[in-house]
Amino acid sequence: MAVLAENHYGKSRVRLVKVVRTPDHHDVYEWTVGLYLTGDFDACYLAGDNTGVMATDTMKNTVYAVARTSTATTPEDFAVELARNIAARKPTLTQVRITVEEKMWQRLKVEGGKHPSAFLQRGPDVITAAAVLTPGAQPVMTSGIKGLVILKTADSGFLGFERDALTTLPETEDRLLGTEATIDWLYTALPADPAAVREAVMQTLLGTFAAHHSLSVQHTLYAMAEAALAAHPELVELNLTMPNRHNIPADLARLGLDNPNTIFIPTDEPHGHIHARVTR
Amino acid sequence: MAVLAENHYGKSRVRLVKVVRTPDHHDVYEWTVGLYLTGDFDACYLAGDNTGVMATDTMKNTVYAVARTSTATTPEDFAVELARNIAARKPTLTQVRITVEEKMWQRLKVEGGKHPSAFLQRGPDVITAAAVLTPGAQPVMTSGIKGLVILKTADSGFLGFERDALTTLPETEDRLLGTEATIDWLYTALPADPAAVREAVMQTLLGTFAAHHSLSVQHTLYAMAEAALAAHPELVELNLTMPNRHNIPADLARLGLDNPNTIFIPTDEPHGHIHARVTR
Amino acid sequence: MAVLAENHYGKSRVRLVKVVRTPDHHDVYEWTVGLYLTGDFDACYLAGDNTGVMATDTMKNTVYAVARTSTATTPEDFAVELARNIAARKPTLTQVRITVEEKMWQRLKVEGGKHPSAFLQRGPDVITAAAVLTPGAQPVMTSGIKGLVILKTADSGFLGFERDALTTLPETEDRLLGTEATIDWLYTALPADPAAVREAVMQTLLGTFAAHHSLSVQHTLYAMAEAALAAHPELVELNLTMPNRHNIPADLARLGLDNPNTIFIPTDEPHGHIHARVTR
Amino acid sequence: MAVLAENHYGKSRVRLVKVVRTPDHHDVYEWTVGLYLTGDFDACYLAGDNTGVMATDTMKNTVYAVARTSTATTPEDFAVELARNIAARKPTLTQVRITVEEKMWQRLKVEGGKHPSAFLQRGPDVITAAAVLTPGAQPVMTSGIKGLVILKTADSGFLGFERDALTTLPETEDRLLGTEATIDWLYTALPADPAAVREAVMQTLLGTFAAHHSLSVQHTLYAMAEAALAAHPELVELNLTMPNRHNIPADLARLGLDNPNTIFIPTDEPHGHIHARVTR
Repeated sequence: MAVLAENHYGKSRVRLVKVVRTPDHHDVYEWTVGLYLTGDFDACYLAGDNTGVMATDTMKNTVYAVARTSTATTPEDFAVELARNIAARKPTLTQVRITVEEKMWQRLKVEGGKHPSAFLQRGPDVITAAAVLTPGAQPVMTSGIKGLVILKTADSGFLGFERDALTTLPETEDRLLGTEATIDWLYTALPADPAAVREAVMQTLLGTFAAHHSLSVQHTLYAMAEAALAAHPELVELNLTMPNRHNIPADLARLGLDNPNTIFIPTDEPHGHIHARVTR
Repeated sequence: MAVLAENHYGKSRVRLVKVVRTPDHHDVYEWTVGLYLTGDFDACYLAGDNTGVMATDTMKNTVYAVARTSTATTPEDFAVELARNIAARKPTLTQVRITVEEKMWQRLKVEGGKHPSAFLQRGPDVITAAAVLTPGAQPVMTSGIKGLVILKTADSGFLGFERDALTTLPETEDRLLGTEATIDWLYTALPADPAAVREAVMQTLLGTFAAHHSLSVQHTLYAMAEAALAAHPELVELNLTMPNRHNIPADLARLGLDNPNTIFIPTDEPHGHIHARVTR
Repeated sequence: MAVLAENHYGKSRVRLVKVVRTPDHHDVYEWTVGLYLTGDFDACYLAGDNTGVMATDTMKNTVYAVARTSTATTPEDFAVELARNIAARKPTLTQVRITVEEKMWQRLKVEGGKHPSAFLQRGPDVITAAAVLTPGAQPVMTSGIKGLVILKTADSGFLGFERDALTTLPETEDRLLGTEATIDWLYTALPADPAAVREAVMQTLLGTFAAHHSLSVQHTLYAMAEAALAAHPELVELNLTMPNRHNIPADLARLGLDNPNTIFIPTDEPHGHIHARVTR
Repeated sequence: MAVLAENHYGKSRVRLVKVVRTPDHHDVYEWTVGLYLTGDFDACYLAGDNTGVMATDTMKNTVYAVARTSTATTPEDFAVELARNIAARKPTLTQVRITVEEKMWQRLKVEGGKHPSAFLQRGPDVITAAAVLTPGAQPVMTSGIKGLVILKTADSGFLGFERDALTTLPETEDRLLGTEATIDWLYTALPADPAAVREAVMQTLLGTFAAHHSLSVQHTLYAMAEAALAAHPELVELNLTMPNRHNIPADLARLGLDNPNTIFIPTDEPHGHIHARVTR
């Protein structure tokens, strides 16, 4: 009577640090990998028959083994390499999906410049990449960023919205606009140099965020996506989730003081939630 | 050139405690609400025209106003009431989706029994409910649970899985099976007494988890869903995500000791990830 | 010129699940252990001389080895056993401090009663214990609880506090009093049955919290400690940290509604912070 | 019978964003403040008498009011100003302690340089400052940093430590050394330019971390403190907590591969814990 309508399984949060050593400096990559398989696994669910089931522990081993021999220096290239490795070993799969998050390590600046083997972690944003492989097709590649915390203190208002009996928010021509954005973009094909494309796309997104005369989060989100599609022909579409992390003007009148848009109370909750997919 | 392919917006993490006072005791409800609207908001994104945009601040106010007059005692009933309130005020919306999470408050046990107005929070699991309303249709209702941490110390093995050059996991007839499950179920219609149905469904799910002779997480996940569908005709389908929170036998041989499945190292990462939707 | 004024080192977050199997049921213990050593380690800091340094990896191994042979069923007994094990191996130490946190696992209730080998994790509070051992002295033992989330919806006011130009809080005879308490108590000596003492102390603390006519968090905190000292002669003193997790009445007047202490907005930040040590 | 042996109370996690607007650019400061008072509050604890109790809500208001009129641009100056404000209003206090954490906002780099009013949050480390004021004395000032995640991939070994029956860790001349450091330093007096001193101290600490030939975490921790005391006469002492965030070489031999210190598994738990106070 019960039917297995859809399913996937895999391993999450497989963490890895890779150190590449050259005579004059080291490079460090920190990746957190997820591996998710789709295929005909009905026997496993219905009868406990594990024949043909790749253990998630084996997937974890795969991450470390592939990392050892890989020359990938970007999460994109590593994701594709992992996807291809698993698909080759299990041709019956209908889909392999690999996600990679990269924590950023910056060289420590010391007297005499950047240190060759000492690093400082930067965030809170992490770089993301995903590869989805289906038999007989090219990998579907996305790149992105997660936890990007940005703020505009000028050129942001929110006016003319609907008012009814439950509306108390005043209109404003001058507010702080802050978000913790999660954005990814779909490529027409895996770029030859994903790091260079990423940097260029991020420059467009952040430059638009900074320059935009914002009439709402939605308005700015769309402008960012539109600019990225215009400037980067290798992008098919963007997914953007930009929660509105409200900075509420402190009510200082109760304390006998004015507040000319100077003192704000930053809040984590509740927060606005704005999501859109923008395509060509 | 850019096209707004899909979008929704709303307010997340609107928190609320409601105290219902009767002469001899108080009841406490703690709900965290999300409200998400879908409709034709192209002008807002493309031109910054906020006409017809319900501010997310207004949605927040709606939660508090509806809570004040509502008689709902379950997250399901509150979700539907909120969805209907917003849909009635904005008939142009194509979808209103409301999510409610409930933190559980238990009466403190004191001498003489349960206290009428002092409470202890229980978790880590939280109760979930969601209502999706589209014009001209009945609300689509789901209930569920999130963060349910359960463990079996018997009747769980993992045998006969695929072995290749990267497989090192030994087969085992006796392992710990632990998960932090997220499960929800779709109703044919909002039940008259959602709390009673929830309790009965949870009893089936947990009883099956406890009694099942598990050959894999997948096997037990499916058995739980199958039992719930068999016992509860008001359910259409279940979504189950059951990460495998590994408890790894400690390698005590290095310390000159045996380990007859007694000492385990519980780990948060990496973890297995098993997801399925099971329908009739 | 630089002087090592004080130091300690050790291992934190050593996690362990122990399963004790009897013919008719299993018992599960989940402990997270910290081990901290104090002694003359100047050569290590000043000269990099690791002679006499017990590696923190060895401390981790000690946790697993002692757990294997231990018969301890409480975090208190396990803490003392670990402290004695390490002190015996390194008699030059001036102090060994062991902390143990226990996550609570409850038997799943199924038809026919409690299941012998299936468990549900309960929290968010965790049980704590600490043993401090110095040469030639009995261990100093504390027990406690961390993350205890409790709430009173009656018998709590806050009146008569100081008012000045920056005071806006109204006085109230009826507010919600909620806290996430961290409490520990110092024993005259390790009790023969720490679990029984813990249960009795917790009953006194929670019973007092529930019954107290609270004029402030400080007032209730002190009443809880006073009651515990009065009822339990084996306690020397208590440390109590009870942040005031504010539940703010929602301002519904703006929405045309009254709010007779019914609808509250629970907040995580900012929060009051109340700490005291109460002794005999 | 019960005695209030020690106590303090206050407000934690008071968050604030301040925007300082000049004709050609904006500056943004994000501070999270804690305020803790010590004094004779026995009547409050013992009798519920709140006379003379400054409500923690009033402390919160104080943060916003002082921020409005303050010209402080560093957490140190803001901490002292808050401490003095409260001490002046309540001369009976025996101690006022203020803590301030600063989240770092960096200007967005856009074409044409740094943007005047768009910002990117950087972390995970946050800047810390604390001022402790007692009647008739100068404020005791500390500055520091929390959550500083740093890594050395060369010049770190761990050799010659004690070996016994429970020691399995191999000696190594070449390991990764990573930590999430919390460091603060005590000043002889509040510096005239705390930001400049901070930058100089951080440069010494990070430069030493990078350059040190590390024989243990303890060894490097001490070297960092020693260098800071030597280079910065305005420092009295440093407190350093440097957990050892282990990066464990992946065991690739099981997978038929070597691992010449290339692939590591970064772990959050268990972790080493190293703490010292280093003074002159």
